[in-house]
Amino acid sequence: MKQIALLGATGSIGIQTLDVIREHRDQFSLYAMAFGKNVEKALPLIQEFKPQLIVVQDFDTKRKIQHGVGDAKVLIGTEGMVEASVQEEVDVVLNAVMGSVGLSATLAAIRAKKQIAIANKETLVTAGHLVMAEAKKYGVDLLPVDSEHSAIFQSLNGERKEDATRLILTASGGSFRDYSRDDLKNVTVEDALNHPNWSMGSKITIDSATMMNKGLEVIEAHWLFDMPYEKIDVIMHKESVIHSLVEYTDKSVIAQLGTPDMKVPIQYALTYPNRLELANTKSLDLVEIGKLHFSEMSFERFPALKMAYEAGRVGGTMTTVLNAANEQAVDLFLHGHIPFLTIEHYIERALEEHTLIETPSLEEIQQIDYETRVRVQQYVK
Amino acid sequence: MKQIALLGATGSIGIQTLDVIREHRDQFSLYAMAFGKNVEKALPLIQEFKPQLIVVQDFDTKRKIQHGVGDAKVLIGTEGMVEASVQEEVDVVLNAVMGSVGLSATLAAIRAKKQIAIANKETLVTAGHLVMAEAKKYGVDLLPVDSEHSAIFQSLNGERKEDATRLILTASGGSFRDYSRDDLKNVTVEDALNHPNWSMGSKITIDSATMMNKGLEVIEAHWLFDMPYEKIDVIMHKESVIHSLVEYTDKSVIAQLGTPDMKVPIQYALTYPNRLELANTKSLDLVEIGKLHFSEMSFERFPALKMAYEAGRVGGTMTTVLNAANEQAVDLFLHGHIPFLTIEHYIERALEEHTLIETPSLEEIQQIDYETRVRVQQYVK
Repeated sequence: MKQIALLGATGSIGIQTLDVIREHRDQFSLYAMAFGKNVEKALPLIQEFKPQLIVVQDFDTKRKIQHGVGDAKVLIGTEGMVEASVQEEVDVVLNAVMGSVGLSATLAAIRAKKQIAIANKETLVTAGHLVMAEAKKYGVDLLPVDSEHSAIFQSLNGERKEDATRLILTASGGSFRDYSRDDLKNVTVEDALNHPNWSMGSKITIDSATMMNKGLEVIEAHWLFDMPYEKIDVIMHKESVIHSLVEYTDKSVIAQLGTPDMKVPIQYALTYPNRLELANTKSLDLVEIGKLHFSEMSFERFPALKMAYEAGRVGGTMTTVLNAANEQAVDLFLHGHIPFLTIEHYIERALEEHTLIETPSLEEIQQIDYETRVRVQQYVK
Repeated sequence: MKQIALLGATGSIGIQTLDVIREHRDQFSLYAMAFGKNVEKALPLIQEFKPQLIVVQDFDTKRKIQHGVGDAKVLIGTEGMVEASVQEEVDVVLNAVMGSVGLSATLAAIRAKKQIAIANKETLVTAGHLVMAEAKKYGVDLLPVDSEHSAIFQSLNGERKEDATRLILTASGGSFRDYSRDDLKNVTVEDALNHPNWSMGSKITIDSATMMNKGLEVIEAHWLFDMPYEKIDVIMHKESVIHSLVEYTDKSVIAQLGTPDMKVPIQYALTYPNRLELANTKSLDLVEIGKLHFSEMSFERFPALKMAYEAGRVGGTMTTVLNAANEQAVDLFLHGHIPFLTIEHYIERALEEHTLIETPSLEEIQQIDYETRVRVQQYVK
């Protein structure tokens, strides 16, 4: 029985992780869960899964759920997530919190030598050098939950690291893949949230539309798989059937495919190196699908991807700024304060205005992260 | 340095194996080579690679090459191939002889605990139960060279056998994939030899056109990967980019892709579990290819595939008859004695007339193989 600490339980990945646990009650048990403020969503889950430890965002939320959680201990905030992650009983920490607040818990879980399933890409984007150094020091595997990174991870299975010569991430193109730059000027939040293939949270859906999601994935892939940026490609593949590919030195390419169901990579991160049945997931039927399309990724059409590559190559705090500016700008867009294309402009401006720290400490990263958010908020006149 | 015994050196796979050795003189050396009668092709290769042992089909051929081989020992026929396969100096036996004559050498190599790269699919089709039992007994891996089986083998890398739930072989459709049954009545040998994707020997090119090649591959996959026939699918994929796929119990699908270059699976069988650079092979460029197509495989359009599944399910000597009747019928077609569609009719008739031996010995297999060829020859009025 694997005891799981699930951080970000009421988000899209969190809910689907609970689906996986529900399908395999004999294999997995929810020891701890962390969520933000969504009491309505969380309470029935707490009553169903009976975690012994619950972490919420603030005291007010704690007060609201306290009556409905029985004997479970309720903790608060980042410190709570850190405490949940290092509990002796916990075997796997699945970190699916949104944004850079997941970083401290990941570092704590690494130091406690937990198996870590990582759905929080900001952890690696903002502090890849720190996280990977710690993972190496403590001999801990970071198991990716993102479908693209899981695909690469699965495609690297059984291979020697040095034989892999290229990672190829596929991108569906997001909600606006058939729009020109001109078409993007007047798109609404509602348009942007209508992703053609994947059902995901709103922030990541916007990131898919700007292609920043793929940019963050490129940076994450760089850290997870220790691969230089010039050996990480992104191609358009609108069906999202091939989730990503690895090319080897002999020109052989291994790929992972499937229907777009996040339960597959989530469960793989929990069962690795083994697999477990997923009865309620649809089999891939290539005959039914008929055709798979591939096309070139354009940096002109998707400048956010170009900014991500550039920030990644510069390194240091530049990716912290990229991520924080993006989170803040997406938030401003989702709340109707700025138009869609302004997301990119704000990120670009934040990157330009930043003075690089080449090998920042965790404190410096957190400081830059905070300052960037404040600055981007101030861009709104 | 791996010392290689190459059986079938002047055939398509043999020549490409020598290309691989040529690219990696520091890794591989040709210890022994066997070929049939093609002295013109063989002599320059002998002079280039300087094998210490040479096997030819008959005394006449031995006489013809004797002057040009220096100190190399020259042996004859099946016994010669067996001797070449068990030489102490040999690390890998790559068996690429055409047809069922490769069987004895494979069995001898297994008993000598050699690493075996198997391009001779008839070995497993005609005597899978014997070969796999011996391989298990001697703890020897059979490394597939066929692009489809290599793809499956690569896609199974690092996985638990019991987690694989389905093998999906892709088929290009061969030279006549866009022809109706009616169109096939008057096709010529020349038409049939014009394969759209792969450059291969003439027998296998005809087998691709009838889809018997895929049928033999299904049977081979059954034995190599210990998978029941109902869990082996064949789908049409005209680009031959995805070479085959494996579905796992969690609905994750792993596939191997590449440009159609046999050097990739050949080299993989020689380097497994590692990989080695293949500088002269083209990288896969999905963007350039643009689209991949998949469609249903029709047993009505390709009755040879149906016969192969049925013979495989019956087992015993039925697959020996399938293979021998096919080899003989293809030979009759290639020599202009029968029309294309008669290949299938002769195989069907041979299967119908056969009295099954359920678990035949090697001698019984060889006897049935011989009798079937004679019978099929007699079908020509």
